[in-house]
Amino acid sequence: MRVVDLIRRKRDSGELTREEIEQLISAYTKGDVPDYQMSAWLMAVVLRGMSRQETAALTEAMLHSGQVLDFSGLVGRKVDKHSTGGVGDKTSLVIAPIVAAGGLKVPMISGRGLGHSGGTLDKLESIPGFNVNLCLLDFERVLATCGCALIGQTAEIAPADKKIYALRDVTGTVESPALICASIMSKKLAEGIDALVLDVKTGSGAFMKNIEDAANLAELLVETGKRMGKQVVALLTDMSQPLGHTAGNAMEVVESIEVLSGAGPADLRELCLELAAWMFLLGERVKTPDDGKKLSSDLIASGQAREKFREIVGLQGGDVGVVDDPRRLKRARQTLDVASPSEGFIAATQCEQLGIACVVLGGGREKKDDTIDPAVGLEFHKRIGDAVERSEPLCTLHYNSETRLEEARRLVETAYQIEPEKPKSIPPLIHRVIGA
Amino acid sequence: MRVVDLIRRKRDSGELTREEIEQLISAYTKGDVPDYQMSAWLMAVVLRGMSRQETAALTEAMLHSGQVLDFSGLVGRKVDKHSTGGVGDKTSLVIAPIVAAGGLKVPMISGRGLGHSGGTLDKLESIPGFNVNLCLLDFERVLATCGCALIGQTAEIAPADKKIYALRDVTGTVESPALICASIMSKKLAEGIDALVLDVKTGSGAFMKNIEDAANLAELLVETGKRMGKQVVALLTDMSQPLGHTAGNAMEVVESIEVLSGAGPADLRELCLELAAWMFLLGERVKTPDDGKKLSSDLIASGQAREKFREIVGLQGGDVGVVDDPRRLKRARQTLDVASPSEGFIAATQCEQLGIACVVLGGGREKKDDTIDPAVGLEFHKRIGDAVERSEPLCTLHYNSETRLEEARRLVETAYQIEPEKPKSIPPLIHRVIGA
Repeated sequence: MRVVDLIRRKRDSGELTREEIEQLISAYTKGDVPDYQMSAWLMAVVLRGMSRQETAALTEAMLHSGQVLDFSGLVGRKVDKHSTGGVGDKTSLVIAPIVAAGGLKVPMISGRGLGHSGGTLDKLESIPGFNVNLCLLDFERVLATCGCALIGQTAEIAPADKKIYALRDVTGTVESPALICASIMSKKLAEGIDALVLDVKTGSGAFMKNIEDAANLAELLVETGKRMGKQVVALLTDMSQPLGHTAGNAMEVVESIEVLSGAGPADLRELCLELAAWMFLLGERVKTPDDGKKLSSDLIASGQAREKFREIVGLQGGDVGVVDDPRRLKRARQTLDVASPSEGFIAATQCEQLGIACVVLGGGREKKDDTIDPAVGLEFHKRIGDAVERSEPLCTLHYNSETRLEEARRLVETAYQIEPEKPKSIPPLIHRVIGA
Repeated sequence: MRVVDLIRRKRDSGELTREEIEQLISAYTKGDVPDYQMSAWLMAVVLRGMSRQETAALTEAMLHSGQVLDFSGLVGRKVDKHSTGGVGDKTSLVIAPIVAAGGLKVPMISGRGLGHSGGTLDKLESIPGFNVNLCLLDFERVLATCGCALIGQTAEIAPADKKIYALRDVTGTVESPALICASIMSKKLAEGIDALVLDVKTGSGAFMKNIEDAANLAELLVETGKRMGKQVVALLTDMSQPLGHTAGNAMEVVESIEVLSGAGPADLRELCLELAAWMFLLGERVKTPDDGKKLSSDLIASGQAREKFREIVGLQGGDVGVVDDPRRLKRARQTLDVASPSEGFIAATQCEQLGIACVVLGGGREKKDDTIDPAVGLEFHKRIGDAVERSEPLCTLHYNSETRLEEARRLVETAYQIEPEKPKSIPPLIHRVIGA
């Protein structure tokens, strides 16, 4: 194999064989192919695309670049959920305990905040003591004990993805359905799961702004997972505005506990119930999505889901007191209301801009080694379709430093599109289910 | 400037400003932009293209990455020729002395063999003692003394091109008219010339196989040169078969001396006269191309051109005895005739394959640090349109090692397309002149 020939073939819209893709990924992971060749190949992939066969081969090559976990010794089907990311998306914190409380195993390997979108690991780390860096042995121990464990990608899991992901980030080669699919699926399939529910977001706060692009990605993810013998469905869901009432790590933990306690914002609760329902269905715990929703709802009402969350927090070293008294979490010292500049109705939001405002306040990272302030964030008061008075607060900023406060304020103020007429339609929370 | 934003813009078919291109090239040359970002950008350029403005900006940025020579202190206009490369193309060795003998200055910075095509520097080095690695001071001294000097790219000349070229070679990003143009023109314009004649080859032995691609590149080269205030024309010439009767470094020097002595193959002689004529015209030495051809012809007939070549060889440390007795050059120890497998007429040649056969014999490099055997090469007996008997030699291989002889023989044998009928048309030597 001459790497330059593989680059040239892809550049000229040709197809690579399974063996060629395996060799390329394996050699790159070992350091035998330099970054500059890989980045040229990645750019050719972004611009020329990959066939379904190539995408599956890439996913498999990345999956087998590291350890594939085997939890077949544990009773119960193993299921997980993956979201393509958005603003205020804290569903993992709610769903994982629900599904574990319902008797399935949830070996969840999550990510950190990326660009404008938050990350499950950052949210969990706002709970004092919570350790997301368990070794694989401890991961299995926690999973066996309580049915769920939430950790970050370890060195053993899909090292090819880790290396390629870092390269894509700095070479403008993130936006490729095939590369996104291989990245997501190689990590998720390494968890040793039987089934996977995907939450593919679309709208102004999603990576895929356009619903067609999101649907294509969802189909690709489902097909790739099925080719590899897994049960997979994808929910195409709305990210044209933040999910729930908050964005910001500790604030999102509070909101998750609210949902687990039977309260919380309606949209967040609804999406959590839907996603958990599909996990129960694919995990063969129920026969229909409606049964799954009912089971999820019951597990919240009975307090079992919340109790399961307390158990996970405890087993992963976190302060369990937080579950009963979320005020133990860090809170920002100051708040500032962002007032509506006019009267009317919220017609749309520049949702990505709201996510960036949260990063600007210190709630996310602009560079890889930035530290996060878990306390800061945004509290949303208005949703699309809501009426708003002039000077009424649209959003409250929770902040600890004034350095970039004005920048965040302006981002938020200009993120809301206010029109005199009530919008004719409001985006549905769930557009459709793919692969069911 | 965030490099990743420039990569993304080009990936999405956007245009970069002159300042952005300057910053990118300058930062890359200094090592502030890593290879992996540059290669992703280069691939985006290959697949998305560059506007004329961008191409000119890139050329200028690469030109000014190093020293731009200034020979304004020397009397006479400075002109040069550049060929896009082919098999058996030894015109530089003939033209440079003709034009210098005619009173113009020829500060020629040339390249080495690349892929299947030969390089002027490798040919010159087959003359014992000939030094192509003059420092810039010696380059100017030789140029001032005899009106011509022939050297390789020094560290001072377009270092950005040197670095980018090496990267393109291993990342499948060679084939872009904009990148080819910037690479050629940045080096040539650094020579401090007033005018440039381009020999853009097309056909099976050229990098641009297709005449439209070659014409587009020629137009781009001419326009870019003119934008930068130079006199430029491009001859679109045939490379559907080797130029002259030989390919191989020492053998091509012999043939060049034959032409300078008033003999040699008709096609090689004709192309040399044409190219020299245009150099005389752009150098304001004559009023018409025909006058230029006549002058060139006279300079050969009078022996002045050959005498000039002897002078150059002497000033650059070479054995001047070679000019009178080319048998002093190294010759291969053995020869093998490649016989025609059938009777008929030569309809076409896979000219690139003939170039590769020469490389396989040791006359070129497959890897950058391969050493060249100057003695080996190919002697062509038949041209397109010629009749051939069964078993009559098509070509003679001159070789020193049998290791890859059979591979070379097969490449040559299968490079000739023999048909029962005489071909209706034979490709013209010169298709057209662009920019006149």
